Amino acid sequence: MAGKISKTDQRREELRERLIGIAEARIAAQGLASVKVRDLAREAGCAVGAIYNVFTDLNGLVMAVNGRTFRKLGSHVSETVAERPQDRAQDQLITMSLAYLHFAQGNHNLWRALFDLDMSTDMDVPQWYLAELGALFALIAAPIARIFPDWPGDRVDLMTRTLFSSVHGIVLLGLQKRISGVPLDRIEAMIAALLSNVTAQAGKP
Amino acid sequence: MAGKISKTDQRREELRERLIGIAEARIAAQGLASVKVRDLAREAGCAVGAIYNVFTDLNGLVMAVNGRTFRKLGSHVSETVAERPQDRAQDQLITMSLAYLHFAQGNHNLWRALFDLDMSTDMDVPQWYLAELGALFALIAAPIARIFPDWPGDRVDLMTRTLFSSVHGIVLLGLQKRISGVPLDRIEAMIAALLSNVTAQAGKP
Repeated sequence: MAGKISKTDQRREELRERLIGIAEARIAAQGLASVKVRDLAREAGCAVGAIYNVFTDLNGLVMAVNGRTFRKLGSHVSETVAERPQDRAQDQLITMSLAYLHFAQGNHNLWRALFDLDMSTDMDVPQWYLAELGALFALIAAPIARIFPDWPGDRVDLMTRTLFSSVHGIVLLGLQKRISGVPLDRIEAMIAALLSNVTAQAGKP
Repeated sequence: MAGKISKTDQRREELRERLIGIAEARIAAQGLASVKVRDLAREAGCAVGAIYNVFTDLNGLVMAVNGRTFRKLGSHVSETVAERPQDRAQDQLITMSLAYLHFAQGNHNLWRALFDLDMSTDMDVPQWYLAELGALFALIAAPIARIFPDWPGDRVDLMTRTLFSSVHGIVLLGLQKRISGVPLDRIEAMIAALLSNVTAQAGKP
């Protein structure tokens, strides 16, 4: 009996992974709006009902894709920083931010889906998602804590979220031609201008 | 003959204003996705074809709504600054940014429409739209130029766009519960943390 349940679980897990892969490819190619339940069922060779047996709704499926994207983003950022062990903490923040920019540019639709998915209530956000986000923030907090060694943890945390949001805003508007209409090197210059000015306060109260 | 043409133009202009008002109310209440041509035609009491006689497409109509929103935003920001004539330039930047936050919070759907409208090519952006954006940027550039009097114009311009994008990112993610899940006073603290650190460099090279 235990073996039979296990086989059902295995099939369910296989379908889950297959659906995530299909949704990921669709989002990457055509954006979030291309994730439609009938198309997914056809491509996965399953019934529509089978999808809702694995995910509560399509938001749950997109969340799973976003989880993968967050992990890829985190790996990309941490590997880029690891390639430059000689960087000062100030430069690490710039390196990370440029890695974020290049990831957003190279994986534009998947990156947009991280922020465009509608999750209007706190209850919609699963713990593993917050954990992925926390891991990304920890990467940013480390150099900030080194730059401002006298700051208490909550001030480091506030600046971490502040700088993440700021760089996100620069990347988001910079990649939207209509608002700023700037080439990539100008987006890079904006990131450097921001972070150089912010971190120039190092060692001051 | 001239009188007849003028009357046609006048009717066209009246329909144009009515459609903008209807679309504005719909976006404010239900967001960008609620702007649908059949609903607009029914509410305006005109044929679908009449809408396309006034606007090239629905994007053109939403752009017109966005133009109004930009003007309201600009007025709100400049009036808020004018109420505090004793502010230093550093504090003016914070005052402006908080005015931006409060406008975004109080006019959430109209504000989102400014950035969510799909305009993928530069050709889609009319000159009057760029002029509205330029007026908003000029408000921000003025205190930056006073804080950093030695900076050349292009450096002031880069920092203007950098800070606008940064504050936009803080407001955008701050108002999306799932990413940061922060109360309004924490968003305000993030804005103050950013701008205090950036402008603390005043007078340094």
